[in-house]
Amino acid sequence: MKKSRVGIIGVTGYAGAELLRLLLEHPGAEVVKIAARSAEGRPLGEIYPGLAGTGLVCTSPSDSFSECDFVFTALPHGVSMEYIPALRAGGSRVIDLGADFRFQDPELYAKVYQSQHQAADLLAESVYGLVEFYRDEVREARIVGNPGCYPTAVLLGLRPLLAAGIVHSEGIIIDAKSGVSGAGRGLSQDRLFGELNENFRAYKVVGHRHTAEISHYSGADIQVTFTPHLLPLQRGILATMYLTLKPGVPASTVFEVWAEAYHEAPFVHPHPRGVIPELRWVVRSNCCHLGYDYDPELSRVIVVSVIDNLLKGAAGQGVQNFNIMAGLPEETGLPLYSPVV
Amino acid sequence: MKKSRVGIIGVTGYAGAELLRLLLEHPGAEVVKIAARSAEGRPLGEIYPGLAGTGLVCTSPSDSFSECDFVFTALPHGVSMEYIPALRAGGSRVIDLGADFRFQDPELYAKVYQSQHQAADLLAESVYGLVEFYRDEVREARIVGNPGCYPTAVLLGLRPLLAAGIVHSEGIIIDAKSGVSGAGRGLSQDRLFGELNENFRAYKVVGHRHTAEISHYSGADIQVTFTPHLLPLQRGILATMYLTLKPGVPASTVFEVWAEAYHEAPFVHPHPRGVIPELRWVVRSNCCHLGYDYDPELSRVIVVSVIDNLLKGAAGQGVQNFNIMAGLPEETGLPLYSPVV
Amino acid sequence: MKKSRVGIIGVTGYAGAELLRLLLEHPGAEVVKIAARSAEGRPLGEIYPGLAGTGLVCTSPSDSFSECDFVFTALPHGVSMEYIPALRAGGSRVIDLGADFRFQDPELYAKVYQSQHQAADLLAESVYGLVEFYRDEVREARIVGNPGCYPTAVLLGLRPLLAAGIVHSEGIIIDAKSGVSGAGRGLSQDRLFGELNENFRAYKVVGHRHTAEISHYSGADIQVTFTPHLLPLQRGILATMYLTLKPGVPASTVFEVWAEAYHEAPFVHPHPRGVIPELRWVVRSNCCHLGYDYDPELSRVIVVSVIDNLLKGAAGQGVQNFNIMAGLPEETGLPLYSPVV
Amino acid sequence: MKKSRVGIIGVTGYAGAELLRLLLEHPGAEVVKIAARSAEGRPLGEIYPGLAGTGLVCTSPSDSFSECDFVFTALPHGVSMEYIPALRAGGSRVIDLGADFRFQDPELYAKVYQSQHQAADLLAESVYGLVEFYRDEVREARIVGNPGCYPTAVLLGLRPLLAAGIVHSEGIIIDAKSGVSGAGRGLSQDRLFGELNENFRAYKVVGHRHTAEISHYSGADIQVTFTPHLLPLQRGILATMYLTLKPGVPASTVFEVWAEAYHEAPFVHPHPRGVIPELRWVVRSNCCHLGYDYDPELSRVIVVSVIDNLLKGAAGQGVQNFNIMAGLPEETGLPLYSPVV
Repeated sequence: MKKSRVGIIGVTGYAGAELLRLLLEHPGAEVVKIAARSAEGRPLGEIYPGLAGTGLVCTSPSDSFSECDFVFTALPHGVSMEYIPALRAGGSRVIDLGADFRFQDPELYAKVYQSQHQAADLLAESVYGLVEFYRDEVREARIVGNPGCYPTAVLLGLRPLLAAGIVHSEGIIIDAKSGVSGAGRGLSQDRLFGELNENFRAYKVVGHRHTAEISHYSGADIQVTFTPHLLPLQRGILATMYLTLKPGVPASTVFEVWAEAYHEAPFVHPHPRGVIPELRWVVRSNCCHLGYDYDPELSRVIVVSVIDNLLKGAAGQGVQNFNIMAGLPEETGLPLYSPVV
Repeated sequence: MKKSRVGIIGVTGYAGAELLRLLLEHPGAEVVKIAARSAEGRPLGEIYPGLAGTGLVCTSPSDSFSECDFVFTALPHGVSMEYIPALRAGGSRVIDLGADFRFQDPELYAKVYQSQHQAADLLAESVYGLVEFYRDEVREARIVGNPGCYPTAVLLGLRPLLAAGIVHSEGIIIDAKSGVSGAGRGLSQDRLFGELNENFRAYKVVGHRHTAEISHYSGADIQVTFTPHLLPLQRGILATMYLTLKPGVPASTVFEVWAEAYHEAPFVHPHPRGVIPELRWVVRSNCCHLGYDYDPELSRVIVVSVIDNLLKGAAGQGVQNFNIMAGLPEETGLPLYSPVV
Repeated sequence: MKKSRVGIIGVTGYAGAELLRLLLEHPGAEVVKIAARSAEGRPLGEIYPGLAGTGLVCTSPSDSFSECDFVFTALPHGVSMEYIPALRAGGSRVIDLGADFRFQDPELYAKVYQSQHQAADLLAESVYGLVEFYRDEVREARIVGNPGCYPTAVLLGLRPLLAAGIVHSEGIIIDAKSGVSGAGRGLSQDRLFGELNENFRAYKVVGHRHTAEISHYSGADIQVTFTPHLLPLQRGILATMYLTLKPGVPASTVFEVWAEAYHEAPFVHPHPRGVIPELRWVVRSNCCHLGYDYDPELSRVIVVSVIDNLLKGAAGQGVQNFNIMAGLPEETGLPLYSPVV
Repeated sequence: MKKSRVGIIGVTGYAGAELLRLLLEHPGAEVVKIAARSAEGRPLGEIYPGLAGTGLVCTSPSDSFSECDFVFTALPHGVSMEYIPALRAGGSRVIDLGADFRFQDPELYAKVYQSQHQAADLLAESVYGLVEFYRDEVREARIVGNPGCYPTAVLLGLRPLLAAGIVHSEGIIIDAKSGVSGAGRGLSQDRLFGELNENFRAYKVVGHRHTAEISHYSGADIQVTFTPHLLPLQRGILATMYLTLKPGVPASTVFEVWAEAYHEAPFVHPHPRGVIPELRWVVRSNCCHLGYDYDPELSRVIVVSVIDNLLKGAAGQGVQNFNIMAGLPEETGLPLYSPVV
């Protein structure tokens, strides 16, 4: 397999480090450059002894990456747009794990992120990298905006049902729960082990930015209620979605719609009514499992979608995009199976 | 303080053992008899070394408890009704932590629990022990049906809002999450540490029995969607409730209604809009904290209620009922404060 | 019960907050003043919502505490000695949960803590508050140096065996494991949930300061090897101690020596050979359980001692000292029983 | 890469399932048959939804495996010896993850496992598969006895130091801690989440069977004290070893000896004095990290060795043996890097 030369900017965060781990063992990639503002000049094995043995040393995000066919950016929103124009000018194709290239419309970006986009001219050539819906666009993309972790879990379950017109677009409620790696490695009192262990809480109960991303890419004109919660565990997102089936639609249609939508998607596993996926079915794999049940008295469909927030929700999806952009089989270098324990 | 003589049947389960621990340090109670089918003849300290030093030995649930002023039953549904007639005949007042005396109507019981009630004649003298709403009835009760853990968390948040008529009674969605002690000590593969740790899942997505208890005691004619989930931690319930505010009602009314409802309730702490309680605010105390936020675009109120499932959701609420029945201050022997860690 | 007026300096740390929780429900104490450098002027319920409802507001540690019969200090080493001279001058008796008054010899302090003691003249009137060995001295003490968490767990197991002369004083190895609350609430990357959860590590493998405290109070001339480890859980210490039995001593003597030493100690539970205590037997109680086994081929005795690091290892032991100083029964306000879950 | 045809007997246990996961993504293996007594006739994806998509169905362990070049057995001790004679007769080479082929001497087996070996004639052709010490013997082996998890962690640290003669062979103490996957999936009360979470305990304090395996393969005439403990986490072993350096040996020699021993071992990472490895440096990789510190006053060397008990301690080491037996590069299909979170 021909190896693309790849670089990573923002390699010390949880998503960046996971991405590096995947790419180090990827048969179609050679990691030639890694960068992190906080770790310039430090050998990787010193920062992460579990990633020792590569010989890689962190450089500055401002260095030239023109030797890279592909550069991944894993940076806070507002930061990757500082570096991506230079990366593009240098000829690299870019996969941004952050939020800066998820909307093609700079006004929408400004509304959601409360600041002006600094590379608005590049938005037009960017593609939203939710592979299962934008595979063709991704293939030739020069910039891919890798989807947010919550929108990935939610949209894989929700979008086909809306597209098929079998659920009402009003009154959609999404109660989502994520492991702590979703919150990142930043230092704050409320991320200490003693504060999160044996604890559980909702956060950003109204107004989480992923709400807009969900609505925008739902394929329908919807306004969802979206409430994220923080689970005391390392990895994984479980989203419980409350929908209303339209009159006359049999409950089994939900499964049929998913099965049709994903019959060629190697990572998405729909289940028939009554099989409800658990988090551990997907943790440490790039898969999404979808399940549901139905309450006929209220015409209520309850959908449960699970992913690993660092894989299908971040680094794994980034590699999936890379595979497609590089003309490789979509599964290359990605875990299809989840460990039992 | 005069000490009542108390007995416990079902002392080896999580709720029974927690109840015992509370009563052993309760200034108004003397534990004179404990029983468990699975541990007849065994000293308590052998079963639970952390409860060593009492000299108590387990007896049979069929023994006479007539020396007890009060008997607590902490048994699976359908089992306590086998013993309670004899307890009543012996003159003891009974607090049932199980599900058998939560409905006064035997037909409702039969519908929800799919079996005939075996002591239907005693239902008429039973009282639903959600103290904050039935304090007066509890005082003289001879049998108290201690509420379910989920209904306790849910009703403390929901019932005053419905009573005040400020939220719609349709479309109520409750997404609840509980620690594993709620599932009990029974042996099953899916309760092993290796299967639950770093895992999260929904269960009984449609049709959990607590759904009927919630609707029945909501004080309104409602049909709720109720989905419980299992958290990888020891204790605590967090319920996220999705309600719709009626037109013209200011969002601040939610807090005002709660504050009015609970101004004399020592264990219930309402918070103003935007303060969202976490699980650890209540774990290992008998308190309930209530918080909410509001999305004006959708008139959506999101309520978060937290309790400790073994205290306010089971044993603690049982002791609270006991205090009232015995004429003691409601807080006696109950933890008002939650440990920080 | 007559209530002593008590104050706490350093109330926001884990030990200080746990101490406050105990004292708020203590029948012989009234908390009249709390202080914390980091939280001056803030109501307690704002810092710790789980401790809401007291009306207490944090003041400065430099304020006068002369209205207090007793003041507890829960501060980093080197800090409590700044405040204690003024507390003594104001007439309060002091229980220091920190390390500043654990040695009566300023030179030993200087050697272990690598700095000069700033209140050396007060050391002579201080008492090492390991109640089980210094009960009489504590009774009249004006300053009590509350023992370290590890030394408490270790000395309760080790000291009687050395005093009885049944184990060799050479070659003692102590492998200790503590929950994260022992490390405190200070912000550091390596205390984040994501870094500690599903992780385990040794730290200060050679040279932990508690090594000297253990040797000094062992009652013998010993040099121990002591290696602490960090467990991914909230509370508790388990110390595994490797000793060598002297020739001709039956293995059962270990239990007999403990039983004799602790027959009047309400919180210490020795077990006969082969019964090995688990952490959960003591967590959230003030108890210590001791167990052991014996390998006759190597004359090796393996002792396991467990305590709750925040109770018997810190705040609980502080209250135990307070009870004795105030002339109250030793168990007053302290949990004798550990929750089952 | 030429693919060997492989089978797995005992695929539903934690080690067997992990092995399957590795082999499904291994470029030099094709899994053609899986078996489990408890799951005969069931599709794999029904037992483990996270391993769905393979089309594999469990068969009986008694079926013929003669189409397999290699068969892995992952069974309790005493059980694999029932099947291995038939596997050998069928021509397959066998890698036994259980304990039945770890000793070549049937009398030693009988002494340690308290029962007669049922396939003693096959012991002579078996090899102890601790690759780092027996690479040449493994290459041509027909039966490999895959080492125990604890002996792997211990021997990688200990054996080179004994071989170099720099530490005393007397008085060696090993305090080991393992995650719960080491205890397996068997149903028992004390493996429930509620009993293990927030808990920690020693077990088999004297007489664990791995003690004999450690002594036997230490390369020296030693009797060790070995005490295992159970950590509340999924995976990983950390062994703390207490050794005594011989007079005149500089402390730095420990690192030098390891560096020499492992300079060609891709999975073993020695660290210089003072660098103490944590569990997460290795979890979910096949690596072992070794570190140590030194107390000159007592000539004490404290060695810390960490591995993932299911990878280097079981399934990963099994695949490492397979790679060598099949003539593949030793790292093929094995994770060299550990996830950061």
